[in-house]
Amino acid sequence: MTQDTGPDDGGDPERGGEVRPVTGDAPQVLSGAEAPAVRHLVSIDDVSIEEMHALFRLADRFASDPRAFADTCPGFISASLFYEPSTRTRLSFESAMLRLGGGVLTAAEMTSSSVVKGESLADTIRVVGGGYADAIVLRHPSEGAARLAARYSPVPVINAGDGSLEHPTQTLCDLYNLHVERGKIEGLDVVLAGDLKYSRTVHSFAYALARFGANIVCVPQAGLELPDYVVERLHEEFQVEPMRADARRLGNLASNSDAVYLTPQKPHQLSLFTDARGWEVQSVDAVYMTRPQTERHSGSELTDTTYLRLEKRAMAAESLRDAVVMHPLPRRDEISDEVDADPRSIYFKQAARGVPIRMAILSWLLGRVPLESAGEPHGQQASYGVPMGPNPCPNPSCISRTETRHAEPRFTILEREPLRVACAYCTRELSHAVIGCSRSRIFHAPEAGTIRLILPEHLVFFEDEEAALGAGFRPAASLAGH
Amino acid sequence: MTQDTGPDDGGDPERGGEVRPVTGDAPQVLSGAEAPAVRHLVSIDDVSIEEMHALFRLADRFASDPRAFADTCPGFISASLFYEPSTRTRLSFESAMLRLGGGVLTAAEMTSSSVVKGESLADTIRVVGGGYADAIVLRHPSEGAARLAARYSPVPVINAGDGSLEHPTQTLCDLYNLHVERGKIEGLDVVLAGDLKYSRTVHSFAYALARFGANIVCVPQAGLELPDYVVERLHEEFQVEPMRADARRLGNLASNSDAVYLTPQKPHQLSLFTDARGWEVQSVDAVYMTRPQTERHSGSELTDTTYLRLEKRAMAAESLRDAVVMHPLPRRDEISDEVDADPRSIYFKQAARGVPIRMAILSWLLGRVPLESAGEPHGQQASYGVPMGPNPCPNPSCISRTETRHAEPRFTILEREPLRVACAYCTRELSHAVIGCSRSRIFHAPEAGTIRLILPEHLVFFEDEEAALGAGFRPAASLAGH
Amino acid sequence: MTQDTGPDDGGDPERGGEVRPVTGDAPQVLSGAEAPAVRHLVSIDDVSIEEMHALFRLADRFASDPRAFADTCPGFISASLFYEPSTRTRLSFESAMLRLGGGVLTAAEMTSSSVVKGESLADTIRVVGGGYADAIVLRHPSEGAARLAARYSPVPVINAGDGSLEHPTQTLCDLYNLHVERGKIEGLDVVLAGDLKYSRTVHSFAYALARFGANIVCVPQAGLELPDYVVERLHEEFQVEPMRADARRLGNLASNSDAVYLTPQKPHQLSLFTDARGWEVQSVDAVYMTRPQTERHSGSELTDTTYLRLEKRAMAAESLRDAVVMHPLPRRDEISDEVDADPRSIYFKQAARGVPIRMAILSWLLGRVPLESAGEPHGQQASYGVPMGPNPCPNPSCISRTETRHAEPRFTILEREPLRVACAYCTRELSHAVIGCSRSRIFHAPEAGTIRLILPEHLVFFEDEEAALGAGFRPAASLAGH
Repeated sequence: MTQDTGPDDGGDPERGGEVRPVTGDAPQVLSGAEAPAVRHLVSIDDVSIEEMHALFRLADRFASDPRAFADTCPGFISASLFYEPSTRTRLSFESAMLRLGGGVLTAAEMTSSSVVKGESLADTIRVVGGGYADAIVLRHPSEGAARLAARYSPVPVINAGDGSLEHPTQTLCDLYNLHVERGKIEGLDVVLAGDLKYSRTVHSFAYALARFGANIVCVPQAGLELPDYVVERLHEEFQVEPMRADARRLGNLASNSDAVYLTPQKPHQLSLFTDARGWEVQSVDAVYMTRPQTERHSGSELTDTTYLRLEKRAMAAESLRDAVVMHPLPRRDEISDEVDADPRSIYFKQAARGVPIRMAILSWLLGRVPLESAGEPHGQQASYGVPMGPNPCPNPSCISRTETRHAEPRFTILEREPLRVACAYCTRELSHAVIGCSRSRIFHAPEAGTIRLILPEHLVFFEDEEAALGAGFRPAASLAGH
Repeated sequence: MTQDTGPDDGGDPERGGEVRPVTGDAPQVLSGAEAPAVRHLVSIDDVSIEEMHALFRLADRFASDPRAFADTCPGFISASLFYEPSTRTRLSFESAMLRLGGGVLTAAEMTSSSVVKGESLADTIRVVGGGYADAIVLRHPSEGAARLAARYSPVPVINAGDGSLEHPTQTLCDLYNLHVERGKIEGLDVVLAGDLKYSRTVHSFAYALARFGANIVCVPQAGLELPDYVVERLHEEFQVEPMRADARRLGNLASNSDAVYLTPQKPHQLSLFTDARGWEVQSVDAVYMTRPQTERHSGSELTDTTYLRLEKRAMAAESLRDAVVMHPLPRRDEISDEVDADPRSIYFKQAARGVPIRMAILSWLLGRVPLESAGEPHGQQASYGVPMGPNPCPNPSCISRTETRHAEPRFTILEREPLRVACAYCTRELSHAVIGCSRSRIFHAPEAGTIRLILPEHLVFFEDEEAALGAGFRPAASLAGH
Repeated sequence: MTQDTGPDDGGDPERGGEVRPVTGDAPQVLSGAEAPAVRHLVSIDDVSIEEMHALFRLADRFASDPRAFADTCPGFISASLFYEPSTRTRLSFESAMLRLGGGVLTAAEMTSSSVVKGESLADTIRVVGGGYADAIVLRHPSEGAARLAARYSPVPVINAGDGSLEHPTQTLCDLYNLHVERGKIEGLDVVLAGDLKYSRTVHSFAYALARFGANIVCVPQAGLELPDYVVERLHEEFQVEPMRADARRLGNLASNSDAVYLTPQKPHQLSLFTDARGWEVQSVDAVYMTRPQTERHSGSELTDTTYLRLEKRAMAAESLRDAVVMHPLPRRDEISDEVDADPRSIYFKQAARGVPIRMAILSWLLGRVPLESAGEPHGQQASYGVPMGPNPCPNPSCISRTETRHAEPRFTILEREPLRVACAYCTRELSHAVIGCSRSRIFHAPEAGTIRLILPEHLVFFEDEEAALGAGFRPAASLAGH
């Protein structure tokens, strides 16, 4: 059910537009090389709303007495395969597994290992998942790495961050915190503040909030607004309406920001859209601060000193009276020390709750605790191998580009007419000037209606006509005239 | 009870005089940011003599059958946070926790982790201690790091070495070995040999021996004698009397050394002080060898080849007939191989006993095994935040200097008149030409009697009058004439 | 019983001839510095055929339900001491220990540790084995490191690879796979393909196959044939007869190769030796592919592109119809992806079975599961310390050369007349122009018959007469005439 290329969010907006999945497509399983019938957690979209609620209930149970569940996974082993360091995330997972009574294998610096002997990710996953461990927690710098790993793994793969693509357990942790602090997520007003452009956790969080029916108030650092493609996906996929917001009641927090209000389309809200000032932010349930993703900024975009900073006086705003302050951590200076003692500051609790929610995820995927409710995952899609030719994915950070072995190019279909496809790993939309059929060896212009008749598994992508001709393809009649 | 800045020993004598605490001060808890009611082990002074005896009894029990206590800490987790590598120490703690049936989180190379994203030690401690682990074993290159960590940690912090300041579990291990080998510590004659100047373990060990009422025979490497400030603290705090020693009976071991005898003041010993040759070393209970701390020597001080070396013929001295040979390890050449087979050589046993004593420490601090006896920790002291101005600590290796976030300057009071204060983290005495009051905004000369009237929490320290004036302070009447 | 220098195989043939042990010598225990009565696994020769069969049965039991044996080693701890990274091997051992319910201490990068403080391997082993752990899994870049460690360790040492010398658990894993897939090993026809010159696993595997009475078909990469010293040892020690093979039935696999058939001497086979074409390979039971050991090739020997590659069409050969395909992994391109789906490809299963076989090894050496059968280890030999003079071992990668402390030169005797001796650690044969007696202080030419009268523990080795004279030795009468 989860061995497919779910509609992943975000990524680096500098590197080109991201894509939204075609909803309504019949879910179709991407059958991996060994086609195991296991659930993975590659994208937050792999989990249905109902499952998330069940995970929250399970996490509540674990949180009530973290040391009382050491008999949940006896003899089970999780392996932390970290191709880039992330101690906090690793320790959180390992703590969860130990609390469940399981064992932990740690490979904290995979790059110094057999990678140098030239082993592919797929082979490593097959070996570790083949008998060493019962679950794999994977951190990898390439986008789509977890999706690739899931294709080959006989045991559950949990994505602990793959490049700038997904970090679903962080998102689940954030949602779980809202659930605990507010008792629900639907209808909450959540401020997203700071770097809304580059932070992958914020994009994933925004999609998830929209799925749950929460409202989002964007208070971006100037120049680091939520990218258009994220807003578009929110609109098209979750029927979220962006509105100009009157953020005066947010006080200091929003003083330098053009706030935007993102809300599920509801009649009573649309009526307010006529107000010239925009929707008035009344009372906020949560403020989600993010650190500047300086490693992705060009130097000119931001200097540390000018970044948004949540201070005591900002917290005095009337609209924030009941708001909890969240932060995915690590923080730098974007939250002042003096806010730490404020009872509304829950960021350390938020991090601590990463353990029970990961206990819930692990015990669920390991089949040790059945979820009470299944529901429908979001946007499951079929994927298809590219039968010939070069890898059409244009994303240099995609795992299909960084891996030289056992990472066959695959794609998902976004729209059939005109044909739009995306890389099945990194979800980047593919660009192609010419489309061929591997059976007929005929190629077409992308807008040609006949393309609809080609079976997906026969689609071939060429950069230009010359490449198609060079591969021995003939132009379609419609092109022959050129 | 232990959340205070205990009177830490030693450190690098090259970097300036160390301080001794004012004994007799009413113990007052340093209330941390989250003020948890947990015991930490930051300094050997945090543990009372009675508690040490209870820990020894507990360790005896664990040592009797190390694998029989795997039900002591089920579901509990310790986290090894190592900001510099120390595999031996780490493995010893982790072995202890595993033997107790607990789980272990390992971050062996914290520097390659989220530190690069700019996270403060305080934040890391709050996250790891907030839900990941039930105890934190911290190794850090900055002096006072464990003290800072303890201020923020909701769970016990165990100092596994912070710079050149403290390594209390090594000291407890050494004392435990004496206890096992000799049945008691009080009244023993213990030779400290080798580098007595730079070895932090030796300084801590000396203070602890003095607290227990043991006698110390110093056999230093020439040029690496026990520093004066250590001898002074031994004298003032533990009423230890230094005497010239007649070390002829030590034979080869002391041939190049001016031996010094350090002993608690007792009538029968003072009477011997009149002897021109000094106290005659009769029969030694233990020889504690140390390696040269070459990483802290200037090149000229010592070359490896000339360092003291314990050889077979040295062990033939009559006075060493019943002495055990100890070494904190790793050794290099300061103990000859041929001594390994000597039954008096216990250094490998000594290292092995690090596990049961750490089992005792962990099970105690985790609240799994109550100590039979509590007693009075040594020299607990109040500490105070510096209300304004720059950090007055002059020690560049102090955690208050190396951390840029969440490490507010704090101090303890050594003497009230004239005022002498020390950094609450690294225990280095603060130097200050001018002292102000943050309320009255008046500043004084350090020797002014009126300073006694300023509340400790209002004390401000300036390098000179100009700095005070620049901060908007007025000179006191007594200074106005200048 | 295993604290001796067994007749190790292989190593780098470029660096000089390897040696075979003198069989028939009375097994004599090499008494280590602390002479513990524990079994180690340093070399595959430490294990008897009967014991291997018992280990296979034990592994079968563990493999039947890997998570059902978590009560086998409660409270026990294994320590992974890895002086060079090998994540796969480490995880395999750690998984095995966790499955048995034991704990794991991990030192994955020992070089960054107290090694820099100058600690010897022997000291580290004594400390870790003295109380931290109940078994030591050692990986080390120097040849003979595990043998040295076993001399000092109070707990079982398991060799996880020492330089290019031995990797016995890999060999046991390979044999176990044959046992599982074929039900027996004796009489099987096993193809060894690829780099047969440099691969240590292949050499160990070949000796072990010969001990079990299997037949070996060599299909080497051109230029990377099985070295003569390996073939000689197979012949002399296991009575294996090399024959020219007719490999036409192997099809593509052997098309570029001069196949050689190695088989135990049996009458019916000798009769075939007269056939000009050589023994005809009929039906193969297993193909064991190896990767090119490029790190040991000089650039000219091999380029990746020309290396043997097992592809689908090679697997179509009639003789391979029932052959399983094995590979010690990691692979690069020597097995094509398309072969992965072939049911005869068992290399991922092979890796997975590394866990139950290591569970068997650990539970056996830890004394938790007695083996049903003991039998006779192969070629146990006495070793002797060199009483004086320099280390005679000519191998710069030998642990006796790379360790500066606690690694006294030792040797084993290969032949008494004329005297031939080998390093007791790395098994390299010693070269010496002059042999002396440490008692009589007389030296002899190596071929002198009187050498037979010198007790082994008095043997001294000199490079030339001058060195002997320089050490105060006199020439024997037979030499005096020179």
